[in-house]
Amino acid sequence: MPQQRIALGLEYDGSHFEGWQTQPHGRTLQDRLGQALALFTQQDAPSTFCAGRTDSGVHALEQVVHFDTDCQRDETSWVRGVNRFLPDSVAVRWARVVDGEFHARYSAQVRHYEYWILNQGVRAPLLAHRTGWVFRDLDVAAMQAAARELIGTHDFSSFRSAQCQSATPVRTLHRCDVDRVAPVLVRVRVSANAFLHHMVRNLVGALVAVGTGRHHSTWVGEILRARDRTRAAPTIEAAGLYLTGVEYDGRWGLPQARERRVFL
Amino acid sequence: MPQQRIALGLEYDGSHFEGWQTQPHGRTLQDRLGQALALFTQQDAPSTFCAGRTDSGVHALEQVVHFDTDCQRDETSWVRGVNRFLPDSVAVRWARVVDGEFHARYSAQVRHYEYWILNQGVRAPLLAHRTGWVFRDLDVAAMQAAARELIGTHDFSSFRSAQCQSATPVRTLHRCDVDRVAPVLVRVRVSANAFLHHMVRNLVGALVAVGTGRHHSTWVGEILRARDRTRAAPTIEAAGLYLTGVEYDGRWGLPQARERRVFL
Repeated sequence: MPQQRIALGLEYDGSHFEGWQTQPHGRTLQDRLGQALALFTQQDAPSTFCAGRTDSGVHALEQVVHFDTDCQRDETSWVRGVNRFLPDSVAVRWARVVDGEFHARYSAQVRHYEYWILNQGVRAPLLAHRTGWVFRDLDVAAMQAAARELIGTHDFSSFRSAQCQSATPVRTLHRCDVDRVAPVLVRVRVSANAFLHHMVRNLVGALVAVGTGRHHSTWVGEILRARDRTRAAPTIEAAGLYLTGVEYDGRWGLPQARERRVFL
Repeated sequence: MPQQRIALGLEYDGSHFEGWQTQPHGRTLQDRLGQALALFTQQDAPSTFCAGRTDSGVHALEQVVHFDTDCQRDETSWVRGVNRFLPDSVAVRWARVVDGEFHARYSAQVRHYEYWILNQGVRAPLLAHRTGWVFRDLDVAAMQAAARELIGTHDFSSFRSAQCQSATPVRTLHRCDVDRVAPVLVRVRVSANAFLHHMVRNLVGALVAVGTGRHHSTWVGEILRARDRTRAAPTIEAAGLYLTGVEYDGRWGLPQARERRVFL
């Protein structure tokens, strides 16, 4: 049978997974998807490749994954069939048969992330594991001013974890916007060609240090230019982070419409 | 020590509780709150009374509870102290020392509920246990037309569960509004002086039968007038239901401002 390359759009609640990437203990999204693919195709689990290897506790509204298979199913069957073998916390949103040159990771042009912060004095059970939590009142205008300095192509060494395996610390940030979506919810939207390990959580940690008044808004730009992780703010918790979408060239024919937002 | 009456505003994710009301197995919100109060006051758990005894799987953005105690603490301590002994899925949002005549259930004038429906072909992991799910496209205008017939003081026997223990099936519905909040999310907002057992879920079940085209919008009014549960639609699942607020006379001095909505 000829091999086909299949791309899937996945949504997941990352709260109870130890990140995307396969681990010997098997409690990862890649392992869980592999099991479902094996059960659906009744073949060995194929190797899967994703656009963004999310960490433990990080969510995805739209992760993109591809794999090769000789199992012939129509696109609707891939969605409904694989979903039958996935838990409530993971679902395939769409499936496409794609050209063999497509690669979920290397073909991705832009990754979009959102970080949501609960900004009130008491914790919120309906948002548990779904937002970060800052109880001091955040100055969103100061955060937005700081965010502006991050836009562009820079060496992001100051916002990179010690475990980062990337060959280069240079990334191009297309967007970094902070807004107060509701009286007690602040959102940070970041888009880049790609991200370093922990980069979004480190950027948001720095913006929060500005928002609480610990640092002036110009401090974030200074940290960026220092290229020194030890000078930046702590990494903010994973719970508030969502991979919200991945952009590819139109020639791959992936679905473009986004009908949902993180909290709506 | 003199007894004081304390009122609490509670938020909870009801997914993993078997409803509000205490049970021998202890897996209820009332049992869990009782344990936290006992640990915080270092006394036996007091008897607690709530505004709306939510069922298994039903959530609350603001449930109101009262109890009597001779334990003297300021209002901030009641919030922070009790929260230390509650799991992530439950929190005290506010506390007030109230007059001994106040009763969370009997003083309540209006209860507000919202029912949220995911309206798309595939399930959504980030909304699992948080919304009902209807995959056929809902006609919200037809649902809203049907909802209008429910407003007012009526015998709601057609929307009452067989287990309902209320002395009378008459309730006054102040509001019943259906809107599409996002492309794939439909919200039903209902407010009444009080509700019968399963009444919101039965009303929403009937509105969904109109929204999917199974019945004309006039059917809901016919069912209401029939006062016969066997003629109505099935009860919709608990997951999408939220107790969003309870109104009391201003003289009790409870907090009025609502800073959060269910999904924002």
